[in-house]
Amino acid sequence: MAIQNREGYIESLRRQKPKVFMAGERVENIADNAMFRGGINSVAVAYDAVNDPKYKDLATANSPLTKQVISRWNHIVENEQDAIAKVKLLRAMGNYLVPCSYRCITADILNTAWFISYEIDKKYNTSYHQRVVGAIRDVQMKDSVVGGALVDPKGDRSLRPSKQVDPDMYLHIVERRSDGIVVRGAKAHSTAAPYTNMLFVMPVSRPLSDDEKDYAVGFFTPVDTEGITFICRPPAIPLEPKELEEPYSSRFAGHVEAMVIFDDVFIPWERVFMAGENEFTGPMMDAFASFHMMSKCGCRPASIDLAIGATALIADYNGTEMASHIRECLTDMIMTAEITYSCGLAAAVQGVRHDSGVYIPKGMPGYTGKVFAAKKLGEDRYFMQEVSGALVATMASEKDYRNPETGKYLEKYYKGREGVPTEHRMRAFKLIEDLTASPYAGWYHGMAITGGGTPQALRMGVLVDYDLEESKRKAKIAAGIG
Amino acid sequence: MAIQNREGYIESLRRQKPKVFMAGERVENIADNAMFRGGINSVAVAYDAVNDPKYKDLATANSPLTKQVISRWNHIVENEQDAIAKVKLLRAMGNYLVPCSYRCITADILNTAWFISYEIDKKYNTSYHQRVVGAIRDVQMKDSVVGGALVDPKGDRSLRPSKQVDPDMYLHIVERRSDGIVVRGAKAHSTAAPYTNMLFVMPVSRPLSDDEKDYAVGFFTPVDTEGITFICRPPAIPLEPKELEEPYSSRFAGHVEAMVIFDDVFIPWERVFMAGENEFTGPMMDAFASFHMMSKCGCRPASIDLAIGATALIADYNGTEMASHIRECLTDMIMTAEITYSCGLAAAVQGVRHDSGVYIPKGMPGYTGKVFAAKKLGEDRYFMQEVSGALVATMASEKDYRNPETGKYLEKYYKGREGVPTEHRMRAFKLIEDLTASPYAGWYHGMAITGGGTPQALRMGVLVDYDLEESKRKAKIAAGIG
Amino acid sequence: MAIQNREGYIESLRRQKPKVFMAGERVENIADNAMFRGGINSVAVAYDAVNDPKYKDLATANSPLTKQVISRWNHIVENEQDAIAKVKLLRAMGNYLVPCSYRCITADILNTAWFISYEIDKKYNTSYHQRVVGAIRDVQMKDSVVGGALVDPKGDRSLRPSKQVDPDMYLHIVERRSDGIVVRGAKAHSTAAPYTNMLFVMPVSRPLSDDEKDYAVGFFTPVDTEGITFICRPPAIPLEPKELEEPYSSRFAGHVEAMVIFDDVFIPWERVFMAGENEFTGPMMDAFASFHMMSKCGCRPASIDLAIGATALIADYNGTEMASHIRECLTDMIMTAEITYSCGLAAAVQGVRHDSGVYIPKGMPGYTGKVFAAKKLGEDRYFMQEVSGALVATMASEKDYRNPETGKYLEKYYKGREGVPTEHRMRAFKLIEDLTASPYAGWYHGMAITGGGTPQALRMGVLVDYDLEESKRKAKIAAGIG
Amino acid sequence: MAIQNREGYIESLRRQKPKVFMAGERVENIADNAMFRGGINSVAVAYDAVNDPKYKDLATANSPLTKQVISRWNHIVENEQDAIAKVKLLRAMGNYLVPCSYRCITADILNTAWFISYEIDKKYNTSYHQRVVGAIRDVQMKDSVVGGALVDPKGDRSLRPSKQVDPDMYLHIVERRSDGIVVRGAKAHSTAAPYTNMLFVMPVSRPLSDDEKDYAVGFFTPVDTEGITFICRPPAIPLEPKELEEPYSSRFAGHVEAMVIFDDVFIPWERVFMAGENEFTGPMMDAFASFHMMSKCGCRPASIDLAIGATALIADYNGTEMASHIRECLTDMIMTAEITYSCGLAAAVQGVRHDSGVYIPKGMPGYTGKVFAAKKLGEDRYFMQEVSGALVATMASEKDYRNPETGKYLEKYYKGREGVPTEHRMRAFKLIEDLTASPYAGWYHGMAITGGGTPQALRMGVLVDYDLEESKRKAKIAAGIG
Repeated sequence: MAIQNREGYIESLRRQKPKVFMAGERVENIADNAMFRGGINSVAVAYDAVNDPKYKDLATANSPLTKQVISRWNHIVENEQDAIAKVKLLRAMGNYLVPCSYRCITADILNTAWFISYEIDKKYNTSYHQRVVGAIRDVQMKDSVVGGALVDPKGDRSLRPSKQVDPDMYLHIVERRSDGIVVRGAKAHSTAAPYTNMLFVMPVSRPLSDDEKDYAVGFFTPVDTEGITFICRPPAIPLEPKELEEPYSSRFAGHVEAMVIFDDVFIPWERVFMAGENEFTGPMMDAFASFHMMSKCGCRPASIDLAIGATALIADYNGTEMASHIRECLTDMIMTAEITYSCGLAAAVQGVRHDSGVYIPKGMPGYTGKVFAAKKLGEDRYFMQEVSGALVATMASEKDYRNPETGKYLEKYYKGREGVPTEHRMRAFKLIEDLTASPYAGWYHGMAITGGGTPQALRMGVLVDYDLEESKRKAKIAAGIG
Repeated sequence: MAIQNREGYIESLRRQKPKVFMAGERVENIADNAMFRGGINSVAVAYDAVNDPKYKDLATANSPLTKQVISRWNHIVENEQDAIAKVKLLRAMGNYLVPCSYRCITADILNTAWFISYEIDKKYNTSYHQRVVGAIRDVQMKDSVVGGALVDPKGDRSLRPSKQVDPDMYLHIVERRSDGIVVRGAKAHSTAAPYTNMLFVMPVSRPLSDDEKDYAVGFFTPVDTEGITFICRPPAIPLEPKELEEPYSSRFAGHVEAMVIFDDVFIPWERVFMAGENEFTGPMMDAFASFHMMSKCGCRPASIDLAIGATALIADYNGTEMASHIRECLTDMIMTAEITYSCGLAAAVQGVRHDSGVYIPKGMPGYTGKVFAAKKLGEDRYFMQEVSGALVATMASEKDYRNPETGKYLEKYYKGREGVPTEHRMRAFKLIEDLTASPYAGWYHGMAITGGGTPQALRMGVLVDYDLEESKRKAKIAAGIG
Repeated sequence: MAIQNREGYIESLRRQKPKVFMAGERVENIADNAMFRGGINSVAVAYDAVNDPKYKDLATANSPLTKQVISRWNHIVENEQDAIAKVKLLRAMGNYLVPCSYRCITADILNTAWFISYEIDKKYNTSYHQRVVGAIRDVQMKDSVVGGALVDPKGDRSLRPSKQVDPDMYLHIVERRSDGIVVRGAKAHSTAAPYTNMLFVMPVSRPLSDDEKDYAVGFFTPVDTEGITFICRPPAIPLEPKELEEPYSSRFAGHVEAMVIFDDVFIPWERVFMAGENEFTGPMMDAFASFHMMSKCGCRPASIDLAIGATALIADYNGTEMASHIRECLTDMIMTAEITYSCGLAAAVQGVRHDSGVYIPKGMPGYTGKVFAAKKLGEDRYFMQEVSGALVATMASEKDYRNPETGKYLEKYYKGREGVPTEHRMRAFKLIEDLTASPYAGWYHGMAITGGGTPQALRMGVLVDYDLEESKRKAKIAAGIG
Repeated sequence: MAIQNREGYIESLRRQKPKVFMAGERVENIADNAMFRGGINSVAVAYDAVNDPKYKDLATANSPLTKQVISRWNHIVENEQDAIAKVKLLRAMGNYLVPCSYRCITADILNTAWFISYEIDKKYNTSYHQRVVGAIRDVQMKDSVVGGALVDPKGDRSLRPSKQVDPDMYLHIVERRSDGIVVRGAKAHSTAAPYTNMLFVMPVSRPLSDDEKDYAVGFFTPVDTEGITFICRPPAIPLEPKELEEPYSSRFAGHVEAMVIFDDVFIPWERVFMAGENEFTGPMMDAFASFHMMSKCGCRPASIDLAIGATALIADYNGTEMASHIRECLTDMIMTAEITYSCGLAAAVQGVRHDSGVYIPKGMPGYTGKVFAAKKLGEDRYFMQEVSGALVATMASEKDYRNPETGKYLEKYYKGREGVPTEHRMRAFKLIEDLTASPYAGWYHGMAITGGGTPQALRMGVLVDYDLEESKRKAKIAAGIG
């Protein structure tokens, strides 16, 4: 049986002993730690979906590798229909309300490693691909969660990896042994990493020169490998779930972000899939971005759907749902969701099948959709607040509502249109606040803008992907230039 | 043989005798009239594409109706792949440089008539569908061009059709006979209509009440039917092709727009597919919009490709192609093209197959893409002019360049970077002028914004298509309501 | 001596005994309560500015009323130069770093009351104006802080005040006595109200019909008047100041928002300036909006200045300050600041002097600037996060940095360009987080969008203020009509 | 008498004999040439305004130089009120409907020359300033029109003036004689130059290095100086005025753009105000841009006023004036006009008085307003077309309307709401077409975007003008960075 469930996943976490710090303290048992609850639950709903008959078609796939029905989260995308299904699955996850189940990245990394290891082998006759295939088979059979470790700290961004004052600023090989390699450095911004089952560590996300081969390193390793330390940022959720305030983030949201330190970590060769082949870091990042931006174009509209619903709900409770300017706001938000989603589907439709059997989505539409949605997030929040009115930032607290001395006034004066209980209207306001003006909103803002690659990097990718010379050729004909 | 070519098409026009006026005069022979040359050529390239081996897969299809390979322009869309092919074909038409071959509307109207006649028959046991099928079979076999007549003059837009002071302001049935109907009224904005082979006339593009049944009328008829008059606006092209100025519009562009007058025109029953079934005008328009906006999401990016190419070309000639702000402009333009195209593909991917066998694209993404691209057109032109510099609006004329007394100065002072002939640079500027600041540019602007439906109408379509209640339901759960 | 200082202000708060609740509890001594610290300090810096020789010209004025040099915060604007000075003062307050000193509203309300009481007297021969003048003289002499209470709870926004199920949903007169009036209702969103010295209560912010005269009520009253209760929302600041995190909001920001309950409060006639003159609520709101939106166009750019500085700082520390796309982001932000500020100055330049002696700024430019800046806030935050990179949402906590076991890693891997201490770079990131992704950022977002009037209300004001008929007249001439 | 009128101006043109070419032919008498009619009339209305009692305060000023009342178009700005008056005058010119009277540039150039000649003299003890003052006195007394010649052809924009393959690509001194200098080169984009009375020629609009001193050359000279040739582009107006079509451009609009060739032109020293002082080209351009962008912020809103009026008019005639989405479009357009105008006023309010007595407006707000309005032009046109509907691009021609056979149909079917003659509605559509989709619209588009400096150049000016270090300093304090 290749499909795990939420309980099995959480149990797997208990068996792991990663070295984790948060807020100045060592955390021994993340599975039962309140600060990790939201993140672990977010991952767990991805298991729920796979086990939900309603999403069977979208959430599972037949693996040619294991000949079993597996979770789509671990599947190697084979064709256009697979890719479309993934985008649809990510939007459908919105029904579970978590803004990020994190597991899209599992698939995106596995697919990328599948592709790049094949390419390296083809050139160098190495045997990386079979190692990756073996790891993926294992992941598919256990239905594990794969964690990503992708982004280096970078230090001075105007300098190349090898020119940094501290050579460790980008993760690199410090020793090559007969049985494996020793790596040193760190990966920043590793969402959810401590509560995954295995890290897939990617090399630096930029082209490398020939004297930077040590920075071209990719491997997989258990999260509790000796020498790995996770320094975690507390998630943007309340420590204890609240009843009325922060209704969304206290129940559905909030990943832990981690910096992952590799302090001379030994990786045996059988877990290595890149070790010095510097010309492959560029193609690898392009492939990863193609997969991951397509995914983002699936999950972002799901969050916008919730924003749209919340906006319509508060307008309904305020008695203004039919006001023309509010319907214009809603329409603009819907168009933002549809454009983003369309970009995801277009990336899926226009992919190419690689020799290794993996189907790689087209990069440009996904990059475009991700940047578009990132830039529109501020506008969506403007609409949400404009439609709501000022109570988003000024409504009294839950405690005042529960205090009889003040609660009687709030019950009276926070009333909206007839037929809507005051508490419902308060909840709707607190939801908008949670989505636009809370610590969660802040975290999501960052994730939407810079998560998976900064807009500027993706914009450069768009320009590179586009066939500018072909368009110039047409312009010459149109201008009568011979 | 079901595939016609450019010559056969032009020959077919010579056999027709429509009553056509332009610029105050009767035009007897449109096939040889200079003002119609550009428009007829634009349609003709759609025939070229079908006969071009390079586009065979995109431009042809197997018709289940005729069991022949036919032009995709006459094909009833059967499935997702068909729909995707149509979007791709429309973008590929950009290689022929015409901004509008017009024939997408052929397909869009035929598909709509196929669907709506089936629906009416289902309810009323009428026999409209077989008439439409017969007409389409004929079109497919002859590879005819079908012209659309869709939009009523409307008069006072705040009033319903039946409340207009002049009852003819919307096309309607004035007499029902045993052998057919007599219609009166007009259709505005009928692009290319005089040089098509058959008109498909659609009913009013708004829901009708029960006392407005006479306005629910749809039929097809030859363009030279007694009582039909075309009043044509001269196209936005130079009367004689120029050598250096207006290089694009004088060779590739420029449809004739026509008002089509129906002055008590008799239509025999066998050409009628709607006559009083007022509840079907809404669904018909929705279906047509779904087809046609998907098409627009294919052709608009082709035009943007040309704009991108022209922008990159002038930057190249100015010696500024690598300047960072110019690359940002290009990237923004590319993203606009890709978003629009993505919306087209997403409409194709998310369609539904109707009982009648036609596959109807999803409306919302196409509407969104059309409005998005319309709103971005001004920005694209801003970028084109900003990148070019002021010569777009100030460059001297071709005649001054050819006059030796002034030409020597222009040759010297219009020179750009080394290696680019002055005339090439002048041509590149004249192309940008043609695309942003010419009569053609004005016509295209209008077509991009209001062609096929105003943005506001499409925005309302987006709001209607979106499942707002489902999103509100999710928001309630997120807020802990109920 | 008519100029108070921070100590005197805080002392004045200790002498007042308003009935204040926050987070479910009664607060007896707000002057020493940690949750009120930030708000009170924000008001206090406005006193600092007045006492700062550097701002003497901007921050003080000669009062014709008291013949003394007074604080500009209490001044009745007399002419264009006064109005310009106020806009400049508000931007200069940015040097004190508080996002809102609140005292602009003092002036805006006093000026409005001055104007409207004069107008009412002129029509009804009432004696409201002399009461207002007396109150203002008192405020000027004591240099008091006037609090605003402007916005009603509104209930069902599609219904007029008199049609609400609960007639108290808008503040109104419930009894008229020989010695005064009794009022009931509430005012929502009263920023800073509990720590002002006197409330100026404005009537409903919409036109009223003749059967709604009881809602046309304006008066001033001490904050500790019998029957008034303040229900306060905890400010968006950390309870205890932090060392490294939330560096901005824990020291400079964060007002308390209050709902002010009027539970049958008696107001003697000598404090009333409107009581039933319903036709004056519209003009009063227009005047208030004209004053207050001009103020907003002064303070908003000061906040944008800080955002610009923070963005340039993090780019500097990342080693990317000279990157072209970052300079484009900075330029866009600067243009947003300058446009907003220009609108404020334009409102000041284009005002009119009223018979009563007060100079009323032009509404339209101020409304425009406020809405423009509100809509751009999301874009500014996008730029800030894009330029920063993902650490804004993922950086570890202060406690981890102080823990030696993890701190050594953070010291090493959070290092930016050579020459910048790691802690400085961390502080710069924490500042961006504070400005874009914190509870404070959420509160400020709401204040920027809906504070002082929703964008849609202001947009309607723009359309009303503009002379549309005059422009239509010109268009007719241009079209050769008539 | 220092105030000229339209007749005197036109008479002055007849006395001049510039060497002018247009459309391949020499034009001997521009004052009576149809192609120059529109441009000359546009300048003439600026004389009308000065003689119109309604605009006396705005359009005239007291000259300290001549001790006479002079036209403001020739005035040296002395203070804030002068600057404000100029911005107001430019918007008021909208009442004459010409989009560009051109004479703002007269004032802007004179003021710039006044400033820069003073600065050069101060450093080098030259006597340029008195020459400029003399020329200005003469201009003021004769009320002449000064023409600008500012922009060099530039060739390869990636190369400096001295690195061009052709050294003449930027205007420069080829010989220095005892009695004067000889200059060679060209100035592009000189709007209206042939029908001015005197050219003020400015040096290259970029900083120059020390080996490029010959390019630092400024002088004034009559338009019919030996060696000067004007190569003119035909204006974007119909050759003969039309009755119904192009109602605006055929009567009010359309300047001639000229390339001005200097083929070894001798300039006596008494007309030279810069000859080799290369360090002053940067400051001069900054000053000119400050003056001229302030002017643009005055005239652009006047054009937007007409666009707003035309949009409201067509909505009125269509019966849709009260539709909510149309009112939103109008509001957006009004806000664009007000923002632009506010930037102009803000530039005027924030200027500084220079030692020489001229008051120089602040650059940043004017640059910002010009770029803002340029970027919004596309949006305004989108709104105009969206509100109008498709007839803008499809309406039949005037000739068809006058032909009885077709005219009867057009009279019937182009009817709008009751009470509006069909011809009025047609005229309103033709006006929108003229403003959005005509050759005139194309020319105006270019002028709005690149006229007086490209957006990117102005954006760089904004970044330079802004005190970024001061904002960074504040950010450091806010971040707690010592």
